[in-house]
Amino acid sequence: MNKEKPKSKPIIDSVAVVGTGVIGRSWMKLLARAGCQVQAYDQVSDNVLRAMAWLEEDLARDTADGLLSRDEARLCLARVTRHESLAGALAGVGWVQESCPENLQTKQAIYAELDSVAPPDAIIGSSTASLDMTLIADGLPGRARCVVAHPTNPPHVAPAVEIVPGRDTDPRVVPLASSFITSVGQTPVVLTRYVPGFVLNRLQAAMLREAIALVAEGVAEVEAVDAIVRDGPGLRWALMGPFGVADTNADGGVRQYLTRYAPFYTEVMNDLRPTPKLDSELIEKVGRGTDDMLQQVSRSELCRWRDDMMRAIINLKKQNPPPWRKE
Amino acid sequence: MNKEKPKSKPIIDSVAVVGTGVIGRSWMKLLARAGCQVQAYDQVSDNVLRAMAWLEEDLARDTADGLLSRDEARLCLARVTRHESLAGALAGVGWVQESCPENLQTKQAIYAELDSVAPPDAIIGSSTASLDMTLIADGLPGRARCVVAHPTNPPHVAPAVEIVPGRDTDPRVVPLASSFITSVGQTPVVLTRYVPGFVLNRLQAAMLREAIALVAEGVAEVEAVDAIVRDGPGLRWALMGPFGVADTNADGGVRQYLTRYAPFYTEVMNDLRPTPKLDSELIEKVGRGTDDMLQQVSRSELCRWRDDMMRAIINLKKQNPPPWRKE
Repeated sequence: MNKEKPKSKPIIDSVAVVGTGVIGRSWMKLLARAGCQVQAYDQVSDNVLRAMAWLEEDLARDTADGLLSRDEARLCLARVTRHESLAGALAGVGWVQESCPENLQTKQAIYAELDSVAPPDAIIGSSTASLDMTLIADGLPGRARCVVAHPTNPPHVAPAVEIVPGRDTDPRVVPLASSFITSVGQTPVVLTRYVPGFVLNRLQAAMLREAIALVAEGVAEVEAVDAIVRDGPGLRWALMGPFGVADTNADGGVRQYLTRYAPFYTEVMNDLRPTPKLDSELIEKVGRGTDDMLQQVSRSELCRWRDDMMRAIINLKKQNPPPWRKE
Repeated sequence: MNKEKPKSKPIIDSVAVVGTGVIGRSWMKLLARAGCQVQAYDQVSDNVLRAMAWLEEDLARDTADGLLSRDEARLCLARVTRHESLAGALAGVGWVQESCPENLQTKQAIYAELDSVAPPDAIIGSSTASLDMTLIADGLPGRARCVVAHPTNPPHVAPAVEIVPGRDTDPRVVPLASSFITSVGQTPVVLTRYVPGFVLNRLQAAMLREAIALVAEGVAEVEAVDAIVRDGPGLRWALMGPFGVADTNADGGVRQYLTRYAPFYTEVMNDLRPTPKLDSELIEKVGRGTDDMLQQVSRSELCRWRDDMMRAIINLKKQNPPPWRKE
């Protein structure tokens, strides 16, 4: 939420990033940029070297683009240290951000180590997009300090972070984790409990399921579906979620909207398609439609445009905060 | 699509707007702004007076906000004429945009009249969000020239317009309608056939269904769900639809993404909730959560912020067109 506030100081100043792939390296950047000392570690030590190289390159691009001064970029890079041992990376930290491969057994093994090595008062957050902290930390002495902190991709650009406690997470850890995430400039979003896909990927899956089904049935081309979203409701979703949108779609607000359109929505919702079989034929159909739409633009060019534009929209919202933000 | 191109001339320069409520008056504005002569009519003649008053006010605000010069606003207003009879409104037009109440019998009665009075070569487009043109125009001599042209709310701000033929729509009408919609600065999106809710409201319903169910079950608060969307995937959806997003979420593109995450998405999609019963208790729960989120900001202030920000995002995209636009 503090995207609209003047820059605040992180409430935990020394953190470890464990697992430094695409998500982990992005956490390195966002945490260092926020002012944290970042201690990076990966079981494959080459991964940390690659992450450091990416960080240097990415900061250089930010400097070239005028997003950071040379001094800020230098400071940011200086805050990140590379560690050959897990113990070295965890020494003295107050937060551990774990971004290791998405596999329950892998995560359980890593959490056993993290819990035995991390300082006793450190919170251990996981970037998992799909696993339940109840199972990841099951039986560990420190399971009460373990919590999901699932970012949006890419974390150093998109603010939303889902905070999801496991069954054994200490209830006091949730507001602490939220405050930390806020203090590093992100938007924490608290779920009360685990559901598969959390909220973010469930909403994404709900839309994707219907979109794929409509393409599979030939109701619309890939390009048509995407054009509707990006030149239609997607413009609103960058500003308000489904409830804010519903509230502004009827003069009497969300209650009037849902009451008036209940028969319509009930009919449409009941007509939504079931989960399509994601076999190679369907994936190829979607792939060809996407190729046609994107016209052989390179994926890196596409991602750069996406990230630059997301940053621009976030800035636009900073400069023109929504009227309900009274902070 | 021509939002990125220099302003073009409408390919049909004289149009009728029939039904001048919230959607119809917005069409009046966008068509006049694009350079069309607009002939406005409503069965309730006071409605046209109200729509004209709104248009004058809205153009004055645009002028005050620097979106239009005084001359442009004056020209725009001068292009709109008010008619007491349907025959007067339809005289000499090449396109009719119908935005009457959403009721099949009402629409059928109006279409019978429109078809008998409109010039023989005029296309008759409907703003309907929910009805099938096959049924609206069933049995009419001119059913081949009738087609759905469903805008996003509010039409004069959001570009996407769904073009949906009925069973009897002449296939040549679809590209003509698309070209006209493009020529007035909107983004036409063609569906091959009617499905309830078309594509836009199906995708919206898919997300809304899951969002309401998660709030109903207490997994997350209204504010949390909305925060995830607006500070997470919503930022991407303003730029790319679900397929473009999937393509940029894996180094190997959409094929790799759907292949790699098929087990995850299949699990999450199969776990998505069924249609909730939209009874007064659930609507009140959603209403209270929305009230808490929006903190008694007036709805008109909220809508003004939404529209201004949508315009700003559209402008941002005009200035930085996506890399796949080679026009």
